[in-house]
Amino acid sequence: MNFINTVRSAWGHKNTLLCVGLDPDPDKIPRHIRKMGEPLLEFNKAIIDSTCDLVCAYKPQIAFYSASKAENQLEATIDYIHTRYPDTPVILDAKRGDIASTASMYAREAFERYHADAVTVNPYMGGDTLDPFLKHKDKGIIILCRTSNPGAVDIQDLETNGKKIYRIIAYKASEEWNYNGNVLLVAGATYPLELKEIRSIVGDMPFLVPGIGAQGGDIEKTVRNGIDHNGAGMIINSSRSIIYASPEGDFAAAARNAAMNLRNEINLYR
Amino acid sequence: MNFINTVRSAWGHKNTLLCVGLDPDPDKIPRHIRKMGEPLLEFNKAIIDSTCDLVCAYKPQIAFYSASKAENQLEATIDYIHTRYPDTPVILDAKRGDIASTASMYAREAFERYHADAVTVNPYMGGDTLDPFLKHKDKGIIILCRTSNPGAVDIQDLETNGKKIYRIIAYKASEEWNYNGNVLLVAGATYPLELKEIRSIVGDMPFLVPGIGAQGGDIEKTVRNGIDHNGAGMIINSSRSIIYASPEGDFAAAARNAAMNLRNEINLYR
Repeated sequence: MNFINTVRSAWGHKNTLLCVGLDPDPDKIPRHIRKMGEPLLEFNKAIIDSTCDLVCAYKPQIAFYSASKAENQLEATIDYIHTRYPDTPVILDAKRGDIASTASMYAREAFERYHADAVTVNPYMGGDTLDPFLKHKDKGIIILCRTSNPGAVDIQDLETNGKKIYRIIAYKASEEWNYNGNVLLVAGATYPLELKEIRSIVGDMPFLVPGIGAQGGDIEKTVRNGIDHNGAGMIINSSRSIIYASPEGDFAAAARNAAMNLRNEINLYR
Repeated sequence: MNFINTVRSAWGHKNTLLCVGLDPDPDKIPRHIRKMGEPLLEFNKAIIDSTCDLVCAYKPQIAFYSASKAENQLEATIDYIHTRYPDTPVILDAKRGDIASTASMYAREAFERYHADAVTVNPYMGGDTLDPFLKHKDKGIIILCRTSNPGAVDIQDLETNGKKIYRIIAYKASEEWNYNGNVLLVAGATYPLELKEIRSIVGDMPFLVPGIGAQGGDIEKTVRNGIDHNGAGMIINSSRSIIYASPEGDFAAAARNAAMNLRNEINLYR
């Protein structure tokens, strides 16, 4: 599977830019599931089965598994998606970044152990720390550019020669790091003007867009400012507003409703 | 255990600034160990037993475990150090960074699951992403400032109002993020002038210093430029030059020799 091609295909034939974040917090999933042997996996399977036709990708955040020693449930979740829904790629949200010899180990973690189709990475340590990921041509390498959290301004908005750091990252992503055509950028929905600026720099490079839902990003502004020339180009993620749409036994149906509403609202503005 | 106090005490009574990186690559450890049931743990135990009196801390890099599904051997390694050598703290090198709700999960991973005494974190996403770590008062929170790899220049050396990004990080670490007195900075040995600059900004804030050994940092310049007012203030890490000092059955004795030589050379310049 080539990640970017598979996502582009899903944007078209499934008519959706939505990505669901699989971040199962043991304290927030329904009580009857908490009692099961593999609660995070069971929760994810129900969410996946109820939303699979509505999404272009799934994005498990690895900390929600590693915090509670549940790596095996993350492996099983990814395997479940690949087996049942092979046209839906999986983004491992891990935001890794380290010197090259260590980055190779992180790439092995993401791609050989978990069989993820894409991984998020942190560019603070520089281009040589991204290469061990970038050399995996068929995988998506999703580089943090302008994140969705309030503190994003602390470093990412500092200016150098009149250009903010996130713009420098966008230029480098476009001109230096995309030598295998497998780079995407993280650009948060909570900062739609920045999203537009980044789009103007990188052409049709795809974005992973967090910040819709619990983080409060505006859907119309996000879509209008972030869309590419084909009315696509964005993997718009929501986690909490979908997976915790209901805390009860109807959580999977509630997740489907929330996902369908969000998918449809996004499509309104494409 | 309070991390910074424990390290300060080790600098004094053990007379060492050395930290050994426990980064066991399954392809590089001695052949007779590879055949064992828990090869990474067995390798680490031998290295630890042979170097424990020479180090102020150990630093396992988590990717070397997670890449090969060996989290249990990382847990057991940390537990082994805490049980046998309770005056030697453990730094979990993970370089985590994510929005606050996820960062809380990463803090849980480092401190509740692995019982690490300190963790490395990436500041690119800003101060609010560091808070879930910083609130753990007794833990060491080690923020990437100026790293040891060649690509460090790509982002960390960009200038904003005449100040390079790593200087901004040093100011923020000193003035904003150290509200619990538990912050340290990563400052690489391969850039001794930058090390000196950072020291001049942060007073006696301790450094974790990678880059000695396989990465080629100069020991004399590193120590002279990085030392604090008490002739200490640095946790100087070496991984490969110590743990792979010999590929044979004598690897533990060879690691001890390499560690002793490095510890002594560092002490020459304090």
